Amino acid sequence: MREVSVNERLRLARIALHWLIEPGNEAVHRMVNANGPLRALERLVEGDVPDPQLRGAAAARMSAGDPHQMAETALVRAERLGARIVIPEDDEWPQAVRDLTNLLGRPAESRIDRDVAPPLCLWVRGVSRLDEAFAQSVAVVGARASTHYGEHVATTMAYELAEREWTVVSGGAHGIDAAAHRGALNAGGLTIAVLACGVDRPYPSGNTALFDRIAETGLLVSEWPPGSVPVRHRFLIRNRVIAAATRGTVVVEASARSGASQTLRRAMALGRRPMVVPGPVTSAMSVGCHEMVREHPEVRLVTGVAHVLEEIGHIGSDLAPRPRGPERPHDGLDAESAMVLESVPRRGSAGADELAARAGLDLRTAMRKLTLLESLGFLTRRGSGYALAPKPRSGKAGASKAAAVKAGTGGRSGRVATPSRAHDDPAAGAAS
Amino acid sequence: MREVSVNERLRLARIALHWLIEPGNEAVHRMVNANGPLRALERLVEGDVPDPQLRGAAAARMSAGDPHQMAETALVRAERLGARIVIPEDDEWPQAVRDLTNLLGRPAESRIDRDVAPPLCLWVRGVSRLDEAFAQSVAVVGARASTHYGEHVATTMAYELAEREWTVVSGGAHGIDAAAHRGALNAGGLTIAVLACGVDRPYPSGNTALFDRIAETGLLVSEWPPGSVPVRHRFLIRNRVIAAATRGTVVVEASARSGASQTLRRAMALGRRPMVVPGPVTSAMSVGCHEMVREHPEVRLVTGVAHVLEEIGHIGSDLAPRPRGPERPHDGLDAESAMVLESVPRRGSAGADELAARAGLDLRTAMRKLTLLESLGFLTRRGSGYALAPKPRSGKAGASKAAAVKAGTGGRSGRVATPSRAHDDPAAGAAS
Repeated sequence: MREVSVNERLRLARIALHWLIEPGNEAVHRMVNANGPLRALERLVEGDVPDPQLRGAAAARMSAGDPHQMAETALVRAERLGARIVIPEDDEWPQAVRDLTNLLGRPAESRIDRDVAPPLCLWVRGVSRLDEAFAQSVAVVGARASTHYGEHVATTMAYELAEREWTVVSGGAHGIDAAAHRGALNAGGLTIAVLACGVDRPYPSGNTALFDRIAETGLLVSEWPPGSVPVRHRFLIRNRVIAAATRGTVVVEASARSGASQTLRRAMALGRRPMVVPGPVTSAMSVGCHEMVREHPEVRLVTGVAHVLEEIGHIGSDLAPRPRGPERPHDGLDAESAMVLESVPRRGSAGADELAARAGLDLRTAMRKLTLLESLGFLTRRGSGYALAPKPRSGKAGASKAAAVKAGTGGRSGRVATPSRAHDDPAAGAAS
Repeated sequence: MREVSVNERLRLARIALHWLIEPGNEAVHRMVNANGPLRALERLVEGDVPDPQLRGAAAARMSAGDPHQMAETALVRAERLGARIVIPEDDEWPQAVRDLTNLLGRPAESRIDRDVAPPLCLWVRGVSRLDEAFAQSVAVVGARASTHYGEHVATTMAYELAEREWTVVSGGAHGIDAAAHRGALNAGGLTIAVLACGVDRPYPSGNTALFDRIAETGLLVSEWPPGSVPVRHRFLIRNRVIAAATRGTVVVEASARSGASQTLRRAMALGRRPMVVPGPVTSAMSVGCHEMVREHPEVRLVTGVAHVLEEIGHIGSDLAPRPRGPERPHDGLDAESAMVLESVPRRGSAGADELAARAGLDLRTAMRKLTLLESLGFLTRRGSGYALAPKPRSGKAGASKAAAVKAGTGGRSGRVATPSRAHDDPAAGAAS
């Protein structure tokens, strides 16, 4: 056996521990905390643990091989592949995953809820530093049986996040996950696939080309050593890393009772931002998203990258502008002026008292508003009455004046109303 | 002039008041409360009101005709049409609109926000009693420029509400409103169009056939006398009646800055249930709905009639069942059994210690789970090992046993898992 440094022994011990007992185990986490990884491994190998189940599980794995030997083999295999192992003692360890300890000791309904301890080590394929890649990251995850709509939304959102220098983290699965990775790659951004199997044989194999692209410019990350196969509980245990390592999780599509809702609940418990994208109520793939909003007041509905950044962005930057409806003819006018304007017949003219009566205003107020509307170019005098002004070649002059009147400024207003549309429909702008 | 009863004089006074001053006026409301409708009308006619604007508005209208005469004419016109006038003194007055007084005296940004007093009278076309028709009612409203999606959702929701004996109230507009009315009519249910114009010339004229159908089996309702034309502020003032008279308001589609959001805010302020239907984030017609959910925590996202009834239904009835995802192979199994089952190779067999090692369990636990899985029909013994059982003709027997094991009951469980699917995919049921 070749000589190894202390650091390398730590590294090997952590690898061996993940091989001996599935990641996330709370008892192992406590042993490592109390005794260090070397002694924790020794104790497990010697059967020196009080919990018979833990002892038994370690023994069963050891019947398949020697943990130290397995760790060495895994390292060699990884090196051949261009992968590396990162441990908490390394500078590039993503510290955010430590927050997983906050989930320990909570009432657990199942083993999945119990196995929430931070990973002891992470296998990594790709050149970026793990800590830097995760530093400004958001998870975009969702259904494998996604719809075109969901994939479109995931791709667009990931693209726009990547454009804004956010790392897009997902699980490498078919459907929404793959769409999110692709969106980030298309923007030339950083994307990380957190896998539930070895980084040498990412699952599903249908995404092999995608995984190769991710490994080239982004990162493939896993708690399991090269050669590991994905099984159901590994996906669920893996989800805690996605939730913990990112600032927030966006679920794009999810069926009822989806695994995505588990990731979201975990994100919530960790104080990360839980977000969902709504969709057609006629789509089974949006049922899970809608349910999460209905059931958890903390879950935020997001419809685009602006909303996501509003949730996770730095204060003072990346803020979403409020959506604006189409401008309406009367937007720049006060309510009474608008009422007078609407009282003017579409053809011909009407006198001030008739218009006052129609608008339900006193004559004095109506006269004042008529003068205003005339000066803004909405109306013209015709004989003793008022008529709608002909459509102006450019309606902006009068309208921005109107906006200025309302805003009480000299005319420098962002809002521009177009008087021309006032003629189209007596109920234009009305809503039920 | 023919002789009229006290009741008829009240009726005429209320009609005249709505003609003299647009409905919703707070000052008129207070005068009617303090002096009764007859004296309130007298005072307005005589100009005996402190507010010069109110005095002026009444004077302007009176220049177009005598209020008493207008009221008589309106009544005659309505009778010819088969319409009637309903006043608060009548048994069939919908008492819920009285709650509008709760909105009075609040800070108001515009005239629309100020004109929120209850209606003084309502014109009605249709045979049902107003109070009974509104008693169990919900508003389904939304964009005029709706999409097929929105119309589909509105029609379906209204149909299903009507099937459950709920009255569907809307505004008679193109788009979502019309779809809601149609859905209720198709179910043979009661629907009410609350209009912003006379019940004799419902707007828009493109919906004339629809209005005729509504008048036949449901109700057309308006605060404005026959002959009145719709103008923008009337639509907005009308919205308060829809919000107040119903138990809740569902907005199906709404663009940003839509009038529907005003109805919803009003419903909230009145303690009615504000609800919105989500839609594709790619649709401009769902932007308003999503914004309302994001901005107001009280606004509930609803995806179907079950959710609506959950919000407005009587406690103990009409409750929505929780959505269920498709059943998964391992749903009935505890986590450790599922892990053992997934460790079994898809072809061939494996020994107990190999399976224990793969599953990361101690041998004793693994053995126990193997025995259980065998007894449930998931596995068969082959030589010294275990193999996946061939797909059963009916998977239900074993699976319902599994569910029973988990539920700890004798087998009477509603959940049925199908073991056959466990063979399909190593990651079946996994989610990102």
